[in-house]
Amino acid sequence: MILALAGGVGGAKLANGLAAILPPERLVIAVNTADDFEHLGFPVSPDIDTVTYTLAGINDPVQGWGIAGESWAFMDAVTALGGESWFRLGDRDLATHVRRRTLLRDHSLSAVTATIAGALGVRHAIVPMSDDPVRSLVRTDAGELAFQDYFVRHQCRPRFESIRFDGADAARPSPGLAAALADPALEAIILCPSNPILSIAPILAIPGVRDAILASPAPVVAVSPFIGGQAVKGPAAKIMAELGLATTPAAVIAQYDGLLDGLVIDRADADGATSAMFVTDTLMRGAADQRRLATETLDFARRLR
Amino acid sequence: MILALAGGVGGAKLANGLAAILPPERLVIAVNTADDFEHLGFPVSPDIDTVTYTLAGINDPVQGWGIAGESWAFMDAVTALGGESWFRLGDRDLATHVRRRTLLRDHSLSAVTATIAGALGVRHAIVPMSDDPVRSLVRTDAGELAFQDYFVRHQCRPRFESIRFDGADAARPSPGLAAALADPALEAIILCPSNPILSIAPILAIPGVRDAILASPAPVVAVSPFIGGQAVKGPAAKIMAELGLATTPAAVIAQYDGLLDGLVIDRADADGATSAMFVTDTLMRGAADQRRLATETLDFARRLR
Repeated sequence: MILALAGGVGGAKLANGLAAILPPERLVIAVNTADDFEHLGFPVSPDIDTVTYTLAGINDPVQGWGIAGESWAFMDAVTALGGESWFRLGDRDLATHVRRRTLLRDHSLSAVTATIAGALGVRHAIVPMSDDPVRSLVRTDAGELAFQDYFVRHQCRPRFESIRFDGADAARPSPGLAAALADPALEAIILCPSNPILSIAPILAIPGVRDAILASPAPVVAVSPFIGGQAVKGPAAKIMAELGLATTPAAVIAQYDGLLDGLVIDRADADGATSAMFVTDTLMRGAADQRRLATETLDFARRLR
Repeated sequence: MILALAGGVGGAKLANGLAAILPPERLVIAVNTADDFEHLGFPVSPDIDTVTYTLAGINDPVQGWGIAGESWAFMDAVTALGGESWFRLGDRDLATHVRRRTLLRDHSLSAVTATIAGALGVRHAIVPMSDDPVRSLVRTDAGELAFQDYFVRHQCRPRFESIRFDGADAARPSPGLAAALADPALEAIILCPSNPILSIAPILAIPGVRDAILASPAPVVAVSPFIGGQAVKGPAAKIMAELGLATTPAAVIAQYDGLLDGLVIDRADADGATSAMFVTDTLMRGAADQRRLATETLDFARRLR
């Protein structure tokens, strides 16, 4: 059994590759929920939705979020009525949030996520990192900002100083994540090429998760989100620079602070690669790349056992 | 100043005719809110929206509710996710309910209605009958049903036995309705051709409204919703039959129980018309009919003063 920790677009791509090569009972994808927020009264779970839409094959591969072929009649109308328009919700995407809100009245986020993913035809387990609310708050030179304020409204322009995960101290791992971590059949823990600070760190901040990963006999392998020191998408490189951190393989290993048994890196970063690194093409242009990188990552993890 | 009481489609048409011939400061349209309900977590105000969309010129004239040229991406997606689909919310219409929900956190339904109507370019005053919740409950041979359950989900098929307006006892007229009723400049009170039992009765059930209308020196004129004993749209004739009531002009006068000074009826019902009735074509096929009927109704009211 494989446990993958994932955040947004890059994480969803590798998770999709893993789902393409593993049967549903052999994969659990635990997803960051610290980006979740309420918008226009809807509970929005951006990372869960990106992973779910990607595995359902309905994601928009161009913009990297939302649903392919989306329409915007609702958003245009709500803007005309003077409503908030800085975070755009497509007509189809909106249905996910409305359904989530209805189901959350009586069910956990884990159960709601499974119901929505199942309705979209996803057969692999997508679980939130926690059913308890955890919220990323970014301290910047423009003050402390809620994550989506920083990420979408301010488009990551303010200087990133630090991040905290409000609620993490009291949060418990979701049942799916806890069960995967405790599963004697666990063969590998894969940290997907998501932003280490924004997407993976919140998962590790939930009490018990980091310790359970450290205690697990399963090898822990991350796929670096950087290629030639740059992020494929998103603000990871900018944030690392503002924090005075490098975007080298060694910096990623240091960022995960003793957690990793191995790191998959791109050929562009191969100079000085150690035996704990596997060098390949990490850019995932499509489903074939996703499958190949997933296969190579699992093979690498297997050799580390 | 003219006060019009209105419900759904027929009421919206005459209200639109009145708005076409009166300046904004000379018309208040008080709208039934007993059909309001929460659906998919949204506060839906069907009659207010029908009147608003009609005055904004964006109503769908074919189906009689919602917005012309509406799209249904949200509804299709929410249905695919297993959500409720019996009450259909179009993508643009949905924006109204989302905006209403946001604004209702800090504002009265009166203020929210004015904001939304204003954003849609409506310059005349559309006011809810009350800012307090009033809910129509229909007793039928299938049990007591919330109004939209009866009206939409069951398509008025159960036998109508009686209706009650839950919350009406404790409701106050909205400030706009109360001010219009007390306005010394009030020249006429028009009961639009809406369903007397479903749409106008709830307005009259709010404590003080009926008495204020009776006490007002302004003539009270209804436009009959029946043509040749049939409703132009909706279940009014079926309900009247199930209650053992006729759909004649005399029955409409009786239904309003002493409130009317005059009744506008269709030529099809002219047999036996009294001097308290004005006979004309009451079918409103378009804007010209709406203006003509509004003009004739106001002229008739003026003659009754």
